[in-house]
Amino acid sequence: DPKLKVFTCNANPALAKEIVDHIGLPMGNAQVVHFSDGEVQIKLNESVRGADVFVIQSTSAPVNEHLMELLVMVDALKRASAKSINVVIPYYGYARQDRKARARDPITAKLVANLIETAGAHRVITMDLHATQIQGFFDIPVDHLLGVPILGKHFAEKELEDVVVVSPDHGGVTRARKLAERLEAPIAIIDKRRPEPNVAEVMNIVGNIEGRTAIIIDDIIDTAGTITLAANALMEAGAKAVYACCTHPVLSGPAIERIENSSIKELIVTNTIPLGPEKQSSKIKALSVAPIIGEAIIRVHEELSVSKLFD
Amino acid sequence: DPKLKVFTCNANPALAKEIVDHIGLPMGNAQVVHFSDGEVQIKLNESVRGADVFVIQSTSAPVNEHLMELLVMVDALKRASAKSINVVIPYYGYARQDRKARARDPITAKLVANLIETAGAHRVITMDLHATQIQGFFDIPVDHLLGVPILGKHFAEKELEDVVVVSPDHGGVTRARKLAERLEAPIAIIDKRRPEPNVAEVMNIVGNIEGRTAIIIDDIIDTAGTITLAANALMEAGAKAVYACCTHPVLSGPAIERIENSSIKELIVTNTIPLGPEKQSSKIKALSVAPIIGEAIIRVHEELSVSKLFD
Ligand SMILES: Nc1ncnc2c1ncn2[C@@H]1O[C@H](COP(=O)(O)O)[C@@H](O)[C@H]1O
Ligand SMILES: Nc1ncnc2c1ncn2[C@@H]1O[C@H](COP(=O)(O)O)[C@@H](O)[C@H]1O
Repeated sequence: DPKLKVFTCNANPALAKEIVDHIGLPMGNAQVVHFSDGEVQIKLNESVRGADVFVIQSTSAPVNEHLMELLVMVDALKRASAKSINVVIPYYGYARQDRKARARDPITAKLVANLIETAGAHRVITMDLHATQIQGFFDIPVDHLLGVPILGKHFAEKELEDVVVVSPDHGGVTRARKLAERLEAPIAIIDKRRPEPNVAEVMNIVGNIEGRTAIIIDDIIDTAGTITLAANALMEAGAKAVYACCTHPVLSGPAIERIENSSIKELIVTNTIPLGPEKQSSKIKALSVAPIIGEAIIRVHEELSVSKLFD
Repeated sequence: DPKLKVFTCNANPALAKEIVDHIGLPMGNAQVVHFSDGEVQIKLNESVRGADVFVIQSTSAPVNEHLMELLVMVDALKRASAKSINVVIPYYGYARQDRKARARDPITAKLVANLIETAGAHRVITMDLHATQIQGFFDIPVDHLLGVPILGKHFAEKELEDVVVVSPDHGGVTRARKLAERLEAPIAIIDKRRPEPNVAEVMNIVGNIEGRTAIIIDDIIDTAGTITLAANALMEAGAKAVYACCTHPVLSGPAIERIENSSIKELIVTNTIPLGPEKQSSKIKALSVAPIIGEAIIRVHEELSVSKLFD
């Protein structure tokens, strides 16, 4: 369909390539480069007039760079008369700044939503938002895709025995239950408590894990502090083995070192964020979200085309 | 006045300190830091409830980092119930992307204006916009300060003889005339022409420069290509000496090397952008814009206080 065009900025060109290959389209011809002083320069080398355009860009690190690339790209597409501008943000950065955790905190996840709308986006496709409330930060449609089916399929194929799915905190129980249902396994929850201020947290395990293979699931693994402590606590409490998985491998700071030195046997992630050279580890395996994002783009584009009949 | 508060982000803390010293205020207590993954974190350590707040931040390199710091700061101030949020942007980045120079170009200077308004700013104070049209990109008041008085004062005190003020291109003639008036000097214009595509530009000098001391003035000096070629052309055409000046020393890429190797005797800039360690040169001298920005803040705050009487 000449009226469906997919472009990418610089955050994850490999994923974008997989997505257009899945759809069976060529990659949109554009370059996102920089002027000598570091300002973003967009070269949109083909017409987008009247097209339903999808732009793929995770707002992963360097987050401000990647966010601004996306905003300038949307501005360029808008001024070039794209019919609809659909931004595909596999990893939505700033999602953890989703509320005032302290007095006078910004709510940057909401600011970013406003910025994306202001630039001119008509729709957002994203995956595993840290808080589903972030959908409500937008006044445009948000398609929210889940990583659990991909992660679940992987573990189902492993045919592990006596599995228990573990949520590393109270906030992640819904996600753990979804994975547990797919694996027909029970769940357990790690209940972190700090007995006194400035005393290390104690990891209480709620649920039966003894002799079982634990799979910890989280949305984001950043510095990997929580997940590696949880893994060690699970082993100490008698788990047979500990696997971990997440959708978004942020993996900043000491993450890789911590994972290497932990009792985690294998960490399964997805490619919403690329695993750059500094994020390589024999313990980490990335699954591709390209098929589900590709399908979502096809579905949204069909929807946009059907709605044209009623325009 | 307890209801006037000035904060800074990270682009130019030295200038911000000079500005609050000029006004006679302590610096607002806030920190702009980063989480482990590079996301901007704002710690607003004092109440701003009901205050007229000024935030000082040039959107100089790294521009996307500095822009985002400003936007998140404005978001935090808004949610902390500041009465008015006045952003002071001594150097407005992306100003050269102010029109569609090529088909399908973004107009990033306009996008940035929209982003600043969306974040919640009520007013902008800025200096020497690359195009004065950028004021019209905002739907909030813009105070536009000029660098010419500071630069003019410096050259007037030098008591140079037989001065001619030179605009390096047609776009800068108005600015050159303002400086020339202050120095009671004539002007000249460099008329760049490219005889054929892919042939080096020829610098024609319009005006009389022989035996005179030329002062080239520009708003921004970025890679310094234009200005150093102009200086050399002026010397070849018989100028006695060539000085150069600008408000915004972007000085990226080969700029310092070019200036060092050029016939420019001295380059006078201002401190809208700090001259970091990689931008040092014995030829470059920076004048401070702190007094005029400080006065502008005092004047705007008075205006805001007076208008309260009519509220
Ligand atoms: N990029 C980040 N890295 C680490 N912590 C963050 C980040 N962004 C926000 N936060 C903090 O994480 C907390 C929210 O995380 P959570 O409780 O998991 O929803 C808040 O205290 C935020 O201040
Ligand atoms: N940061 C930048 N560095 C160099 N050139 C730029 C930058 N931003 C925009 N431009 C280009 O500069 C031209 C406008 O400059 P001017 O003719 O001096 O107004 C346009 O062709 C822009 O594409």
